[in-house]
Amino acid sequence: MRVDGRKVDELRPVKITRRFTDAPEGSVLIECGNTRVMCTATFTAGVPRWRRDSGLGWVTAEYAMLPRATSERTARESVRGKIGGRTHEISRLVGRCLRGVVDMKALGEYQVQLDCDVLQADGGTRTASVTGAYVALVDAMRWAAHKRYISSPDKVLRDCVSAVSVGVIDGTPMLDLPYPEDCRAMTDMNVAMTGAGKFIEIQGTAEHRPFDRTELNRLLDLAEQGNRELQRAQSEALAD
Amino acid sequence: MRVDGRKVDELRPVKITRRFTDAPEGSVLIECGNTRVMCTATFTAGVPRWRRDSGLGWVTAEYAMLPRATSERTARESVRGKIGGRTHEISRLVGRCLRGVVDMKALGEYQVQLDCDVLQADGGTRTASVTGAYVALVDAMRWAAHKRYISSPDKVLRDCVSAVSVGVIDGTPMLDLPYPEDCRAMTDMNVAMTGAGKFIEIQGTAEHRPFDRTELNRLLDLAEQGNRELQRAQSEALAD
Amino acid sequence: MRVDGRKVDELRPVKITRRFTDAPEGSVLIECGNTRVMCTATFTAGVPRWRRDSGLGWVTAEYAMLPRATSERTARESVRGKIGGRTHEISRLVGRCLRGVVDMKALGEYQVQLDCDVLQADGGTRTASVTGAYVALVDAMRWAAHKRYISSPDKVLRDCVSAVSVGVIDGTPMLDLPYPEDCRAMTDMNVAMTGAGKFIEIQGTAEHRPFDRTELNRLLDLAEQGNRELQRAQSEALAD
Amino acid sequence: MRVDGRKVDELRPVKITRRFTDAPEGSVLIECGNTRVMCTATFTAGVPRWRRDSGLGWVTAEYAMLPRATSERTARESVRGKIGGRTHEISRLVGRCLRGVVDMKALGEYQVQLDCDVLQADGGTRTASVTGAYVALVDAMRWAAHKRYISSPDKVLRDCVSAVSVGVIDGTPMLDLPYPEDCRAMTDMNVAMTGAGKFIEIQGTAEHRPFDRTELNRLLDLAEQGNRELQRAQSEALAD
Amino acid sequence: MRVDGRKVDELRPVKITRRFTDAPEGSVLIECGNTRVMCTATFTAGVPRWRRDSGLGWVTAEYAMLPRATSERTARESVRGKIGGRTHEISRLVGRCLRGVVDMKALGEYQVQLDCDVLQADGGTRTASVTGAYVALVDAMRWAAHKRYISSPDKVLRDCVSAVSVGVIDGTPMLDLPYPEDCRAMTDMNVAMTGAGKFIEIQGTAEHRPFDRTELNRLLDLAEQGNRELQRAQSEALAD
Amino acid sequence: MRVDGRKVDELRPVKITRRFTDAPEGSVLIECGNTRVMCTATFTAGVPRWRRDSGLGWVTAEYAMLPRATSERTARESVRGKIGGRTHEISRLVGRCLRGVVDMKALGEYQVQLDCDVLQADGGTRTASVTGAYVALVDAMRWAAHKRYISSPDKVLRDCVSAVSVGVIDGTPMLDLPYPEDCRAMTDMNVAMTGAGKFIEIQGTAEHRPFDRTELNRLLDLAEQGNRELQRAQSEALAD
Repeated sequence: MRVDGRKVDELRPVKITRRFTDAPEGSVLIECGNTRVMCTATFTAGVPRWRRDSGLGWVTAEYAMLPRATSERTARESVRGKIGGRTHEISRLVGRCLRGVVDMKALGEYQVQLDCDVLQADGGTRTASVTGAYVALVDAMRWAAHKRYISSPDKVLRDCVSAVSVGVIDGTPMLDLPYPEDCRAMTDMNVAMTGAGKFIEIQGTAEHRPFDRTELNRLLDLAEQGNRELQRAQSEALAD
Repeated sequence: MRVDGRKVDELRPVKITRRFTDAPEGSVLIECGNTRVMCTATFTAGVPRWRRDSGLGWVTAEYAMLPRATSERTARESVRGKIGGRTHEISRLVGRCLRGVVDMKALGEYQVQLDCDVLQADGGTRTASVTGAYVALVDAMRWAAHKRYISSPDKVLRDCVSAVSVGVIDGTPMLDLPYPEDCRAMTDMNVAMTGAGKFIEIQGTAEHRPFDRTELNRLLDLAEQGNRELQRAQSEALAD
Repeated sequence: MRVDGRKVDELRPVKITRRFTDAPEGSVLIECGNTRVMCTATFTAGVPRWRRDSGLGWVTAEYAMLPRATSERTARESVRGKIGGRTHEISRLVGRCLRGVVDMKALGEYQVQLDCDVLQADGGTRTASVTGAYVALVDAMRWAAHKRYISSPDKVLRDCVSAVSVGVIDGTPMLDLPYPEDCRAMTDMNVAMTGAGKFIEIQGTAEHRPFDRTELNRLLDLAEQGNRELQRAQSEALAD
Repeated sequence: MRVDGRKVDELRPVKITRRFTDAPEGSVLIECGNTRVMCTATFTAGVPRWRRDSGLGWVTAEYAMLPRATSERTARESVRGKIGGRTHEISRLVGRCLRGVVDMKALGEYQVQLDCDVLQADGGTRTASVTGAYVALVDAMRWAAHKRYISSPDKVLRDCVSAVSVGVIDGTPMLDLPYPEDCRAMTDMNVAMTGAGKFIEIQGTAEHRPFDRTELNRLLDLAEQGNRELQRAQSEALAD
Repeated sequence: MRVDGRKVDELRPVKITRRFTDAPEGSVLIECGNTRVMCTATFTAGVPRWRRDSGLGWVTAEYAMLPRATSERTARESVRGKIGGRTHEISRLVGRCLRGVVDMKALGEYQVQLDCDVLQADGGTRTASVTGAYVALVDAMRWAAHKRYISSPDKVLRDCVSAVSVGVIDGTPMLDLPYPEDCRAMTDMNVAMTGAGKFIEIQGTAEHRPFDRTELNRLLDLAEQGNRELQRAQSEALAD
Repeated sequence: MRVDGRKVDELRPVKITRRFTDAPEGSVLIECGNTRVMCTATFTAGVPRWRRDSGLGWVTAEYAMLPRATSERTARESVRGKIGGRTHEISRLVGRCLRGVVDMKALGEYQVQLDCDVLQADGGTRTASVTGAYVALVDAMRWAAHKRYISSPDKVLRDCVSAVSVGVIDGTPMLDLPYPEDCRAMTDMNVAMTGAGKFIEIQGTAEHRPFDRTELNRLLDLAEQGNRELQRAQSEALAD
């Protein structure tokens, strides 16, 4: 039993709110327990210079935290004048995960920018960003299909994608770590998977205690189960 | 009659949600029509270096917009590596307005940082920031009194403060301009007032057509009325 | 009676020197008491990208202080690698004031950049910048008319503009505050007016003690009188 | 058979040169095929502020590429004024891998900074950085033991660590990808392992085609084998 | 005969105005022909961290150009967010030249910051900066002696220093090049000398045509003569 | 006799290794005693914007130090977010020296970027950069001639160029100062010369003790001799 009463293989409650704000082509608030991330998708004509005239689209992501998403205030990166390594790392991760399910040819020379802004952080903000950004991306694709920029969302999106964190706490592999568990985890892994159950991204780090193949397998089992449930939540949200 | 059916001296619907997030000492979501700003107050021991050993506290504010608060995506200032002039100007305005009602001696050597992040922008984001930040500030003062850092919120806060925009559209002075009106306004004024009906800040700009004393007076009348209503909304929210 | 012997409604001595340097299309040194600001106007073909093909011109301003304009040396913003909020705020104010008297259509797709560099600061540097920049702008317009870029300065400039500071010191409203008074002012207001006596910009701030309508009216009366005198000085300088 | 004649489970030739330069406490040139990375270890008294008085040491890493490490010149990040996301991501990866084998308590309040500068890039620069940085770290520990800052390298270093890339090319899992293979890889994974055969870091990304559990297992087998060989090369170099 | 009617070994008219502004400990306007540089000296207690507790003082310089010092407007380095190479190079040159005549032990743990801001540029701005900064430095030393921070200016200043440019135009060595000559010069040299006729700095560059020993000697003769005259102007200004 | 046993007019051992890395059009490792600099030349079509359609080529240089080139680690300029004055100064010096032997018309609208990265610093890194960069430039010219971008290296390169440091130590002029001597030098001079024995750049600085004409001449004699030997080493390296 865990601090919040969950079982080791149990997700925190997930809530996905679409059309959270009006302006973006896709706008989603995802809540995973106390973690809350606002994910917007911006659809624009044209692609970055290095990709022009390739006939291919582009998907990119930016992640950020509001100053008081955390228990102590974090200085704004805009005020500090530079983006920190953690922000860069997560933005890149989110971008790769989403690109992993997009058929760039079917998208054509359009760009989707995914913005994931953490309103409240309680562990798993990067995985919640991936899961929420996918829903915003679908909404943007529906918008684009409606506007006839693309033929249909199904042509562009090859599969869905979600991500979840897993970790080893006091020797026990557990699913979906909130912040207090995350701090105590000896091993920490973020796993992004498609609806078909394949991996798009595995990032396991064991700064505090290396892990072996057996633990890895158990963690991947948990992640698989968690992602299946998250994808169910995505489907339900998108069915509304 | 205006586009959204309001009368010239009518505010947009105001909604103030306290405890919008858990971590900050004060956390408020203020909605003025479609404008939505998240205002948090962070209370910390100590003051900036230049104010140390003065026995006085400090209050400061930072304003920012999420990339898709607007109809077209705005690049992040963290990514551009610098803060724009508009952001600086508004952050400073919000800070001055809030400091205008704080007794720094009663606060003692503590600092309150107010963060106003615009989730959705439809005109009047800077005035909504002032109005919402005041409520967050009260909550932070209550927290601080509870923790015995200050004696009581009433000692520190000399009065309440709110702000509202007014402007002249096609020759008619109007209260609380949404974005489409703001764009058409020849004169645009932001007015911050205390509960006692005094001015803390008046910023009137008439880049497009200068205004005379008569118009100014009519605008200030409207602002006075608007601020009274906003202060009622603040009171009600704080009474919960 | 004030420290420097002036009456409450008396301006400091104003001196406007045109052709202060040779290279710019307009180059003015304005001295208001001990405050000295060098204002240059640069006239160039073309406008910023966002304004291209609009048939409209553009006017913009940048304000800065030399390191030893002040009694203690201020670090250069170029060395610090970023522009501070105060600088941004003032640059924007000066730009708005000057744009307020320019007919952008008559200017055509040309840009005027106004640079206001404070050689010596003794209060009122932002208002001196507005007053001096207007004279530099007229000289640049005369140059442009001579070069046949515009038809005539009178077509482009709809009126003159000047600005002055007013404030309440120990309960008494006063005109044109030097630095020592500025520090003691409970209320501080900068007012930019046209030759026709209309307002282009009012920025009143009362961080230290809110002010009421009566004080506001008295301050505006003083500002009106001060601006009339400043505009007389502008006229005389331009008549040479 | 691969372009360079290697078998799918064969490493490129590895060469580790210790004492490559004189000044650093550890200085290593590691060559993995045509990839060449200079890794230096700097040992200094004291730790970053946030870790002071903890009794614990700290290990951190910075990765960079010389402009012409690549076939087209890459602009210097110093000239661009900011560090790119890829650089941040890799620096963080290298730091975590090395910290994964260090007993911070045994190190005491000393810091080791690892600098990995790529002189020539032909794929696998981040994994070569980890492998080379470990050797530089050992040399720095020997130096520190000699200077009596630490008791012995074996107390501080709990195990060795190396890293290798693996990937799926045209459906075939392969070990140690040079640049041309890296570009064609549908799945790309970097695996850091200890001498005991445990994982410190797994970063698998499949932006171009998701992978399943079977492929993952085959990739991990290859990585295990590759890391065993790299650790043999580390041992031999350190035995000189 | 030269464009401006001078002989090849003739300086442009030099004018040195002391007490150009009131706030700095030394404030000088130096005019060399149309080149005008404002040089201020700021005297402060304490030295940079790396020099603390050495008993030695420090002298440093910063050079900058106002945007319209030149015939085309130069963007502000503060706006661009970084200092250019030319600015850095000249600031360092000016600092070295002034340090070259200061006895740091006699100065004690005080710092003098020299700010050289070019109001108008017509060639030779860096050499005018050196010549003018020396006069501002003397005034700051007199101020410091008066305030009893140092015993006497003569103890701190071992000699005077001035600088002048020389160059080869169409094969003819010439003294003190204005901008149009500077552009045409195949060889360009800046020479800083002490009152005793010794060299503190020689910077000769011949990007456009290498020069030989004979030319070098002729250029140095001219520089010697020019510096003698500049030092006479310094003396006269300081005698007032 | 000097610390390292050399005579006052003796160079440190010079070793020039061409084709040090594979990717660049020219890649040279130059070793002058313990100073080691990697110099690469990148040849690209096109020139900077300000030089377009001039028919002329461009040559530019960037100098940098790896963090542990020095006995104490130097923070990366990329991490600090700005380039220091010393780096700017040296980059500009190297660029000017190389441009001094290039016929820009014969080069045509191509650009050569020279990157000089110091792997190990023991004095004379800027002069070694010039000497090494020339060899890299020749290799890039040979490559360009082979690719038919230019007619022949001899047409583009008017002469060779090398640079050496000289200085006065305890009253004795000496050639080629290593770091410990450099620190003690009262006068320090860097001299770049062509194969014809003419000067391209002379930078003498005497922050610690001014020097006279006699010393200058002796220093130039030493520099001339040193450069002749360096040019012999360049020739030999290029003959391989």
